[in-house]
Amino acid sequence: MPRLPFLSTLAVCAMALVPRLAAASDQVTTYKLDNGMDVVVIEDHRSSALVHMLWYRAGSADEPRGTSGVAHFLEHLLFKATDKLEAGEFSKVVAANGGSDNAFTSFDYTGYFQRVAADRLPLMMEMESDRMRNIRLTEENIATEREVIIEERNTRVENDPGSLFREQRRAALYLNHPYGTPIIGWRHEMEQLSLEDALAFYQKYYAPNNTILIVAGDVEPQEVLELANQYYGPLPANPELGERARPSEPRHMAERRMTFRDPRVAQPYVMRSYLAPERDSGDQEKAAALTILAELLAGGQTSVLTRKLQFETQQAVYSSAFYSGVSLDDSTFGLIIVPAAGVSLEEGEAALDAAVSEFLQEGVDEEQLARIKFQMKAQQIYSRDDANGLARRYGVALTSGLTVEDVQAWPDVLQAVTAEDVIAAAHEVFNLKNSVTGYLTGQAAQEIGQ
Amino acid sequence: MPRLPFLSTLAVCAMALVPRLAAASDQVTTYKLDNGMDVVVIEDHRSSALVHMLWYRAGSADEPRGTSGVAHFLEHLLFKATDKLEAGEFSKVVAANGGSDNAFTSFDYTGYFQRVAADRLPLMMEMESDRMRNIRLTEENIATEREVIIEERNTRVENDPGSLFREQRRAALYLNHPYGTPIIGWRHEMEQLSLEDALAFYQKYYAPNNTILIVAGDVEPQEVLELANQYYGPLPANPELGERARPSEPRHMAERRMTFRDPRVAQPYVMRSYLAPERDSGDQEKAAALTILAELLAGGQTSVLTRKLQFETQQAVYSSAFYSGVSLDDSTFGLIIVPAAGVSLEEGEAALDAAVSEFLQEGVDEEQLARIKFQMKAQQIYSRDDANGLARRYGVALTSGLTVEDVQAWPDVLQAVTAEDVIAAAHEVFNLKNSVTGYLTGQAAQEIGQ
Repeated sequence: MPRLPFLSTLAVCAMALVPRLAAASDQVTTYKLDNGMDVVVIEDHRSSALVHMLWYRAGSADEPRGTSGVAHFLEHLLFKATDKLEAGEFSKVVAANGGSDNAFTSFDYTGYFQRVAADRLPLMMEMESDRMRNIRLTEENIATEREVIIEERNTRVENDPGSLFREQRRAALYLNHPYGTPIIGWRHEMEQLSLEDALAFYQKYYAPNNTILIVAGDVEPQEVLELANQYYGPLPANPELGERARPSEPRHMAERRMTFRDPRVAQPYVMRSYLAPERDSGDQEKAAALTILAELLAGGQTSVLTRKLQFETQQAVYSSAFYSGVSLDDSTFGLIIVPAAGVSLEEGEAALDAAVSEFLQEGVDEEQLARIKFQMKAQQIYSRDDANGLARRYGVALTSGLTVEDVQAWPDVLQAVTAEDVIAAAHEVFNLKNSVTGYLTGQAAQEIGQ
Repeated sequence: MPRLPFLSTLAVCAMALVPRLAAASDQVTTYKLDNGMDVVVIEDHRSSALVHMLWYRAGSADEPRGTSGVAHFLEHLLFKATDKLEAGEFSKVVAANGGSDNAFTSFDYTGYFQRVAADRLPLMMEMESDRMRNIRLTEENIATEREVIIEERNTRVENDPGSLFREQRRAALYLNHPYGTPIIGWRHEMEQLSLEDALAFYQKYYAPNNTILIVAGDVEPQEVLELANQYYGPLPANPELGERARPSEPRHMAERRMTFRDPRVAQPYVMRSYLAPERDSGDQEKAAALTILAELLAGGQTSVLTRKLQFETQQAVYSSAFYSGVSLDDSTFGLIIVPAAGVSLEEGEAALDAAVSEFLQEGVDEEQLARIKFQMKAQQIYSRDDANGLARRYGVALTSGLTVEDVQAWPDVLQAVTAEDVIAAAHEVFNLKNSVTGYLTGQAAQEIGQ
């Protein structure tokens, strides 16, 4: 497959150098500031808007043990006062300038963004660079915002059996790695989060050498570089940042099962998660095979699981397969079946296993594989029209251990996957020892003596 | 029950004060040095020997995440060179003086001890205080001793399916607390342990204010205090030690199950572990009820499980219940059944559950309860004859958050447990949501597609 035009040669250049000239169709340019900050510019001149994003290479999996939730807590606190702005003023200024802003936290990153008219870029940089180093937090901020995140947990997790189930499954799947800890935090640890916890995380990770600036929209790379130097350039690097290393998994030697019972569950299901390799820089082939495996199994009406479980035998009302290869450390591959009425969870699980097993014996349908690759190629081409989506894709990749070159190479790596690659990857990943199989049910437990 | 004579009033006194005078039968005296070191003297004048023990309030659960095994690694490294001694010389000197020495590491403590003639106490203190602060480690020590601990792991864990099974169960039981990490360490992390890791742990935790000195045998408390002041007194406290706090468990909301398959397994069994409260200082009642519960269920030939599973129905060749309340944080309560020939693991588990369920419905046999209490009282009295055992009991308790007063009160707390206390504690602990049920079997897995 020819290299897609919107993702051609990018290079990380020293700021003093002229950025590497790429083909005329290039829309992505990268720089590195002297203080270590990465700058990615994605040009899209069809509208006069832009998105300004700041990505920190710090997420919940970087939290000190026992302070779960502090990465997300800090994300909230970044909207409090700085030396120059009052609490809440940041978003008010963005809105007053006709824009919108928000932030997000995941295992591997924390990100902040604003969508504004292109001429407001200097103002966004001024405010965003201010809060990278000059946040002013009070004990009252902590007390108030801690209530907010606990309420957020109540709404998103405690009131949703599916979310609680996911938390317990992840905690049972990861035996050592902090991916087993929920991004929002364990409630009892959130309740103890302190000003010191927040500041320690802030002072360590909120520094230009831990940051990727992404500007996408109606901008010229050289202008963005000049503005970045003006606003972010003076910020000092944190020399004590160190290597980003988290504990990794020991061998998983025993399949695990879990039954989560909650009377609020209306629709029981079976979800199995396997530990799975992630996309590694320069080594994305296996992750590509798993990406295509998930599509073959569950991407659309003609996929293997949908056909076998929903149409042919009607044992399921829904089935799916999940895999996301963008992750700093080991990811997961998931299978789910929602059994049809009259089909038990045990029967549903057996049907799911049988369907996957049949697929592995029958092998990959080459026509289906070609169709999936064609759809992926089309999606890649469509996605060039979405500068925001591209910005997000680069941000996630660059905070998850991948390089610009890896992002560029990904479409080609996907196209190169063969049927044999898929089957080999499936055999490697579908090892029950590396899995947790969870049942979510509304049925009450039968406790000993109760 | 009257207070047992060997465990009467003890008090932690400032070193400048005369130790609190206790009844003539007292054999335990405690002090605290100015640098924060606790001193416990257990008198036993029937032989001219003594045991000199140094207990650090630092075990594997205090390790920084990602450096599992470093507490135990450091225990090995304490036998290398110091400013005054060559590598290996410590044990040679002990042996040359007719003694023996060793060390041990657990989740909550690391301990070093020597058994020697009483007149060798000054020499032991001189050497032990030396290696508390003056260890001299080389990269070669690290490389060599790392091989030794990895070989120890091979022998104790990798070659024993039961040990591997225990590791995987603990990792699945503890969702957040470091008790889910093996004391010896995850192999892949042990392989990366560095000189810096060992020294960081040493410099933080090996300080007199983190230490309990226990001397048991043919000694006079005042002499021990004077020697302790002479040898340990000059060592500086570590002012940065901080509070000892580890991450605690979130709510456990889903029962977990695990099947560990290993062709080396000759005798399959079912083991269930529940998270269970530990003995807390001043609050040992529930732990006492659980201690007695374990005895009622599995202590001897007349116990509930033995009777129901081994004698009456002969479904088991072995069954047992385990509980140890001495732990800084949440402990576990275990049930095990080794099914008889022809009884499957599933049938064995059902029989175990049925036996426990019957017990809870039938209630506690008051005669059995009285017999167990009488046996415990007798054991307490016998144990006064074992100064080494007493020394160890105090060391474990004092490094696990308990006080001398708690250790003294324990026999009375046990005797006060009622049948109702036992049943209430059982109902609280036997909650499947807080449990992992593990099957250990020699049968091969049926993997998808294999």
